[in-house]
Amino acid sequence: MPITTRLTEKLGIAHPIILAPMGVAAGGKLAAAVTNAGGLGLIGVGYGGQDWIEQQFGAAGNVGVGVGFITWRLAESPQLLDVALSYKPSAVCLSFGDPRPFAPAIQEAGARLICQVQNLSDARLAVEAKAEIIVAQGGEAGGHGESRATLTLVPEIADLLGETAPETLLCAAGGIADGRGLAAALMLGADGVLVGTRLWASREANVHPNMHNAALIADGDATIRTKVMDIVRQYDWPGRYTVRVLRNKFIERWHGNEEALTQSVEAEQPKWHRAWAEGDVEGSNTVVGEGVGLIRSIEAAATIIEQMVVDAEKRIREGAAMS
Amino acid sequence: MPITTRLTEKLGIAHPIILAPMGVAAGGKLAAAVTNAGGLGLIGVGYGGQDWIEQQFGAAGNVGVGVGFITWRLAESPQLLDVALSYKPSAVCLSFGDPRPFAPAIQEAGARLICQVQNLSDARLAVEAKAEIIVAQGGEAGGHGESRATLTLVPEIADLLGETAPETLLCAAGGIADGRGLAAALMLGADGVLVGTRLWASREANVHPNMHNAALIADGDATIRTKVMDIVRQYDWPGRYTVRVLRNKFIERWHGNEEALTQSVEAEQPKWHRAWAEGDVEGSNTVVGEGVGLIRSIEAAATIIEQMVVDAEKRIREGAAMS
Repeated sequence: MPITTRLTEKLGIAHPIILAPMGVAAGGKLAAAVTNAGGLGLIGVGYGGQDWIEQQFGAAGNVGVGVGFITWRLAESPQLLDVALSYKPSAVCLSFGDPRPFAPAIQEAGARLICQVQNLSDARLAVEAKAEIIVAQGGEAGGHGESRATLTLVPEIADLLGETAPETLLCAAGGIADGRGLAAALMLGADGVLVGTRLWASREANVHPNMHNAALIADGDATIRTKVMDIVRQYDWPGRYTVRVLRNKFIERWHGNEEALTQSVEAEQPKWHRAWAEGDVEGSNTVVGEGVGLIRSIEAAATIIEQMVVDAEKRIREGAAMS
Repeated sequence: MPITTRLTEKLGIAHPIILAPMGVAAGGKLAAAVTNAGGLGLIGVGYGGQDWIEQQFGAAGNVGVGVGFITWRLAESPQLLDVALSYKPSAVCLSFGDPRPFAPAIQEAGARLICQVQNLSDARLAVEAKAEIIVAQGGEAGGHGESRATLTLVPEIADLLGETAPETLLCAAGGIADGRGLAAALMLGADGVLVGTRLWASREANVHPNMHNAALIADGDATIRTKVMDIVRQYDWPGRYTVRVLRNKFIERWHGNEEALTQSVEAEQPKWHRAWAEGDVEGSNTVVGEGVGLIRSIEAAATIIEQMVVDAEKRIREGAAMS
């Protein structure tokens, strides 16, 4: 039996699972695979421009997908929202910045507004923006985020929504990599989950095989939140956000030496980009969350999602038998 | 119906809930209240000496309780273990350090060995020490801890135990403040939970009323992990551990200025201790976890535990109805 929640009912999907719109990794191919598997795929725009957005919607073909933006980047290139909306995405997810300036255009275009937040004050902003779905992202997530943990952030935002916006749906993000995480998120009061790292570790993700291999041998202690990946790329992320990656030689060299990296960024930046392109897992960064320690194999997205739902159901059924 | 797990069966208790052995707050009165409510109370030795241990076992009366030590402190005063064991505690919990030197004496005394760990390598040490119960503590916990999140650490250690020590029980700690957290922990593969902050916020805890009040008005964004509370007390904690407390004027003044605090510790230490004794919530520290945002009232420990179990059961039952 599928798991039915307010999220599956609202979106008309089989499983309460949304693909985290990871820059690069979550392209049109992965987004379409997640939608085809009964979830909702979101293309991650990341630092991509118009060409990239067009390519990825092309790769998704005529499968219904949504799209996710880095909000502070979108504020620098707001025309990209129109590019994305021209593809009639089913949903637009805004993360890392004030969603309010973009909300009306998204809602007028008939796309569902999803706002990902990392703390309570941003959850209040998302309610103000009339988000239909709020994603509470804990710091165990891979990639950009903050420090609050999923386990406490989700029920606290559930209480906030219960008091101020009971029609708004809630998803949990950060650390949800298998059926146990999905079942736990539902217990915490979430209507569904955003899955990043576990779907990053899928066949359809735009990820170098070396990085997949590095992730498979890593345990959950092997990740760290850092600023050096943004410093070397000269991406002007607001100070509150860090990015979770695997520890490696690049991290050993520069984490804690941010000033020195800033000084030598002209030399280091091309080296990092070359390493990234070549799948050099020591010279660039493998972007995964703490859930990496729960991943044993690279699978098709459909296999991952099916397994996650079957296991979650089994856990909940076994839990009910405990009492 | 009570929730029955391997933990309730092994310990012969009604509810899968153990009191976190919080220094000062978890005295004999609170430990006895938790045991009387159907859980297992652990007296937190913290920085206490022989007199304090004797007083707290005295306060517990003839209610069966256990005891928890800070392992690196116990290594400095190992005779305190004999003091505690003379009271025939049902369990001894060791946190923050290598448990192996103390395991044999605990096991020979017939007490159950509980090891609290913050990462995978310490979980392996706990297995080596033949712990009967391993507690996976996430960084959302109040007081001392590290950075891994409960949501990913619990299933990862569950997998480790499944492969290497399937008879060893697992509890989740960190961020579990209500029935949602308890239900989520069970879904993640835990046999039970350690509850700190929520029982800190009980009538039986040794906590100044001003600190209780500060916690009631705080949300979960209001805490921080820091070293300054240990620096000002000149407690020689290993570098990997920080302590989660409420942000306040003391934190604003010193967090990030650790070197300056070390320089002026002779002047600042008596001020901090005076502030602590007087319940000055700006001049000392209120030690709580991220779960503080889920707490609305100070209740009797028995009320807290009953509510937690009833709510967890309800959640799990509702979850089973989703599929």
